[in-house]
Amino acid sequence: MQENNYFIYVNGSLHPREEASLQINDRGLKFGDGVYETIRVENGRPFSWEKHMQRLATSLNLIKINYDTASLHEISMNLLKKNNITKGSLRIMITRGIGGVGYLPGKNNVCGVVVEAIHMPKVPDQPVDLWISHWRKIPAECLPAAAKTMQGLSSTLARMEAEENGCFEAVLLSTDGNVCECSSSNIFWVKNGQLFTPSLQAGILAGTTRDNIIEFWPNGVKEGIFGIDELEAADEVFVTNVIWSALPVRKLMPAGIEFKSHEFCKKVNEMLAEDIKKDTLAA
Amino acid sequence: MQENNYFIYVNGSLHPREEASLQINDRGLKFGDGVYETIRVENGRPFSWEKHMQRLATSLNLIKINYDTASLHEISMNLLKKNNITKGSLRIMITRGIGGVGYLPGKNNVCGVVVEAIHMPKVPDQPVDLWISHWRKIPAECLPAAAKTMQGLSSTLARMEAEENGCFEAVLLSTDGNVCECSSSNIFWVKNGQLFTPSLQAGILAGTTRDNIIEFWPNGVKEGIFGIDELEAADEVFVTNVIWSALPVRKLMPAGIEFKSHEFCKKVNEMLAEDIKKDTLAA
Repeated sequence: MQENNYFIYVNGSLHPREEASLQINDRGLKFGDGVYETIRVENGRPFSWEKHMQRLATSLNLIKINYDTASLHEISMNLLKKNNITKGSLRIMITRGIGGVGYLPGKNNVCGVVVEAIHMPKVPDQPVDLWISHWRKIPAECLPAAAKTMQGLSSTLARMEAEENGCFEAVLLSTDGNVCECSSSNIFWVKNGQLFTPSLQAGILAGTTRDNIIEFWPNGVKEGIFGIDELEAADEVFVTNVIWSALPVRKLMPAGIEFKSHEFCKKVNEMLAEDIKKDTLAA
Repeated sequence: MQENNYFIYVNGSLHPREEASLQINDRGLKFGDGVYETIRVENGRPFSWEKHMQRLATSLNLIKINYDTASLHEISMNLLKKNNITKGSLRIMITRGIGGVGYLPGKNNVCGVVVEAIHMPKVPDQPVDLWISHWRKIPAECLPAAAKTMQGLSSTLARMEAEENGCFEAVLLSTDGNVCECSSSNIFWVKNGQLFTPSLQAGILAGTTRDNIIEFWPNGVKEGIFGIDELEAADEVFVTNVIWSALPVRKLMPAGIEFKSHEFCKKVNEMLAEDIKKDTLAA
């Protein structure tokens, strides 16, 4: 199936990709007033569905959108069949819908619900370069860090900056200079055989792949607030999200620090692949 | 004309309000990846058009969207006629359009262009209460403060918080506790006959009404970085935007500080009304 023939679910019905749209007055469009999830699909089934639904509920709750996620599984399964996706990704977006005066939402808004299902995007097959962005991560006092919101401009600007500098992904530091996360991934590193990653207290999103690694890595992951110097002194670095799993890092730019080992990344990917298989092939 | 009969301009054509939509894949919707302007209309003409176009160009430039604003005046004038608006507002929204992989935009995106024109919304006719929000203003290191972007969630959350506490508008402080701006307005106060307002260095948006007051107020406006204590010690407070002009403040909550004088606000409004008349009735 060509990408152009995909159908998209919008507010109760399926539409060919290019005809799928939301009203201009939807607050998701006007203000980025909504939340989303990206979910990996393997063997025709969404991976870690419950974890994603829990995070979606958290996101909705944190920005006070009232929406019951119960129907999303059936909607998603139908769409996967319609688009003939066995390996790919689901993107579920819930907006605050139409209504209100300026920034103040109406009392009886009906949410906008959009579900997309696409084949697995191309994932880099070689280690990638990371750019330390001059854009800083928005502090949790300004927007709830645990909500996966549609406010994607800072990630966009950081990713554009990385691309301009020949890098694949951007690292965002906190306003006080600690390592947070990347524009669309979490970050891990290895020092003397120990796995490290910023803790949620660093004001980052709890990536589901990050969660899985912390939960299942045999020797444990050390979480904390870490300065950029600790990342720079690492023996190995990788970044994680549901689509990439663990993506090995070649260089940290602009410092030009090179990482030659990718062994932990390889082992993490084997572990994640096993988990994906178990979850999506379960009875 | 009923509000429901409004037409909205979207990407080259006019659509009845409820049919006006943008594709799901437009980055404006997916990531709030775009900018906008709200412009006052009086006597059938947009007020301070050039100022708005300059700020729009600045916003576009800061987030690296390539769009020529030259056609917007004709589009706006046609829409005002179509919707029969002589007193109201224009809302112009430019998105980064369709294209890219995840947060990384494509190289040849065509912008999404949306123009709305509505009758003047209801403006409070009594002094309003302000709520000091627990949500802080996003620092300029995280998003360019001088760009009027579609990232409206922090303003939305602050405004909802104000409403829950019986207040009309929310004040956002910086992460270090200084007065910044309100969810959809700039803030001014008076102490011993002197007008004060946070400077742009406080990481705020250069509101066009704010600009006009600073430019034309006979005795000058003192700009700076001010703590909340200076606002609380004021003799008079008002908030400004293109639709409200200057809106007098009755109480600062939750502290419960009451302002009984609204004389400066009245004079500022007279000055602004004169300016609006001159600009929109000019040959």
